[in-house]
Amino acid sequence: MSNASAYGGTSATDPLSALTIERRDVGPHDVHIDIKFCGICHSDIHTVRGEWGEIQYPLVPGHEIAGIVAAVGSDVTKHAVGDRVGVGCMVGSCGECVNCEKGDEQYCLRGNTGTYGSTDVDGTMTQGGYSSDVVVNEDFVVRIPDGLELDAAAPLLCAGITTYSPLQHWNAGPGKQVAVVGFGGLGHMAVKIAHAMGAEVTVLSQTLSKEADGKRLGADHYYATSDESTFETLAGRFDLIINTVSAQMDINKFIRILATDGALVNVGAPPEPMDVAVFGLLLQRRTFAGSAIGGIRETQEMLDFCAEHGIAPEIEVIDAESINKAWERVMKSDVRYRFVIDSSTLATA
Amino acid sequence: MSNASAYGGTSATDPLSALTIERRDVGPHDVHIDIKFCGICHSDIHTVRGEWGEIQYPLVPGHEIAGIVAAVGSDVTKHAVGDRVGVGCMVGSCGECVNCEKGDEQYCLRGNTGTYGSTDVDGTMTQGGYSSDVVVNEDFVVRIPDGLELDAAAPLLCAGITTYSPLQHWNAGPGKQVAVVGFGGLGHMAVKIAHAMGAEVTVLSQTLSKEADGKRLGADHYYATSDESTFETLAGRFDLIINTVSAQMDINKFIRILATDGALVNVGAPPEPMDVAVFGLLLQRRTFAGSAIGGIRETQEMLDFCAEHGIAPEIEVIDAESINKAWERVMKSDVRYRFVIDSSTLATA
Repeated sequence: MSNASAYGGTSATDPLSALTIERRDVGPHDVHIDIKFCGICHSDIHTVRGEWGEIQYPLVPGHEIAGIVAAVGSDVTKHAVGDRVGVGCMVGSCGECVNCEKGDEQYCLRGNTGTYGSTDVDGTMTQGGYSSDVVVNEDFVVRIPDGLELDAAAPLLCAGITTYSPLQHWNAGPGKQVAVVGFGGLGHMAVKIAHAMGAEVTVLSQTLSKEADGKRLGADHYYATSDESTFETLAGRFDLIINTVSAQMDINKFIRILATDGALVNVGAPPEPMDVAVFGLLLQRRTFAGSAIGGIRETQEMLDFCAEHGIAPEIEVIDAESINKAWERVMKSDVRYRFVIDSSTLATA
Repeated sequence: MSNASAYGGTSATDPLSALTIERRDVGPHDVHIDIKFCGICHSDIHTVRGEWGEIQYPLVPGHEIAGIVAAVGSDVTKHAVGDRVGVGCMVGSCGECVNCEKGDEQYCLRGNTGTYGSTDVDGTMTQGGYSSDVVVNEDFVVRIPDGLELDAAAPLLCAGITTYSPLQHWNAGPGKQVAVVGFGGLGHMAVKIAHAMGAEVTVLSQTLSKEADGKRLGADHYYATSDESTFETLAGRFDLIINTVSAQMDINKFIRILATDGALVNVGAPPEPMDVAVFGLLLQRRTFAGSAIGGIRETQEMLDFCAEHGIAPEIEVIDAESINKAWERVMKSDVRYRFVIDSSTLATA
């Protein structure tokens, strides 16, 4: 085992603090990664704050990891020392169920192993990427193409794949009308990716405050959902709506702006059930769906797609000591559009 | 214009009674149909009772019409006098929108013309199939294949197509696990059709009281939803669930028995919104959808499919004078599985 510098939560309420955690020895199929950058995802906050269920402390969050391979196990074939690599929301799955066999490890029927807060292969709890280094099975490590900077690549491992996967699954592309609800970390990536896929892209945000950014990043149209006329104007318009907002909302307004056979896909889930008026679905054979991250093969495909199309998130790189302040800003949606921790600052935090 | 014997509602509360209504002259593209049988659909009751909005009286319901062509207009090419034909839930649509062009007239963007209670081409209100005869544009008249009896064919025009269309759209077939919620008029047709398509079929009914019927008609499995263990046993099982129950229910229990990428499709809509827990959708990329009847081309395809596979609804043929009693039994779900009116009894009712 080896020690790693980290930053994590020690209770549901205290600020995060500098920690030293242990990383397991590099097994035959493991890759030891020197973490260079880790993105801050809203899920990190929900989890550490105990909002998604009770957890054990200390917990080091972070599942948008980009770094360099420092060592590999004896049987590793997919990665080599010096490679630029990433780790997303999963570090393991059963490998045997029908979904794992298809490459949809995110839907592993036995439950995948989360990058933090899950039980790891050695029985310990996984600790995430707000850390100097991490040991991960090679099958859950992806290559970061040369065309992507490591800092900007980090958020692709969650925000990128979470939006790429449903855009791909529901066939965003030329001739398709795609709307993105919410223009934050996930939303701005959905806009860039959908635009690169060739779809006509509309942002639906509470206000028009980020309209200029939205259009600069690939949106063809930008509407305020606080303006009721938006929903009249857009009635029956969209083939696909990616809803990146996890808060409660009147989902039926959004269902009614779907075209025939259109799909509204939530990539986050509000804690309370949503009231769905079934007539809105029935009258135009619309669907309301959910989508969670993406599989490993698809994550690699997404990284290659982003490199090829010159797409990367808009980021603000911070020191470890700014993590608590960054969390406060994330909770206020005051970030354009993703914080990324410079992991070199962890050791001295 | 000509007179037709009919049976219809004169208020939201009075029993139906014998009426004489007018049918328009046969226009160049019209078909005059001598109605032989008309099925009784729960929608008839909801509509006449004003439960789906205020209506004008008198109203003659009925949209499961089977009969013989008595006359055709000068420009009619699709049907000839003496043909066995049917009319379902629609008698018109705009013919110009993208959905009409695709043959999805049920999703006409300008709204299709319902077989009863809609504004017809001549400005009058359409009157339905509890009637001796009807005049309908040839494009909304389908052929009833020789292999189908006219009385049993009638309910296919609504109950048949309403279940066939989503089974077809969501690819029910060999290797697919299909569940049918509710075993009544629509449910028993869904079972027969899904079985004929080659799917493995499970009925989910409140109790096991109709289990023997279910298995006789094509179900491989039959479970009671009143038994909580049903939902544990079936967790993650189904590729497709057709929900024929329009009442309020805990839809999340049914979402959780969908497999990865499974779809729960409502073919009826409860008046109140349904509480959907989004996590259940998100974790396995499940969808909650709605589907309404089917297009005209698809209705013809369904009739041909039923004739080819020897499928017909289980029916109880009644006289016009028994319609009010039949409605009471429909409201108590006391029908196995569809009432069909013998239209020859209307003139003397």
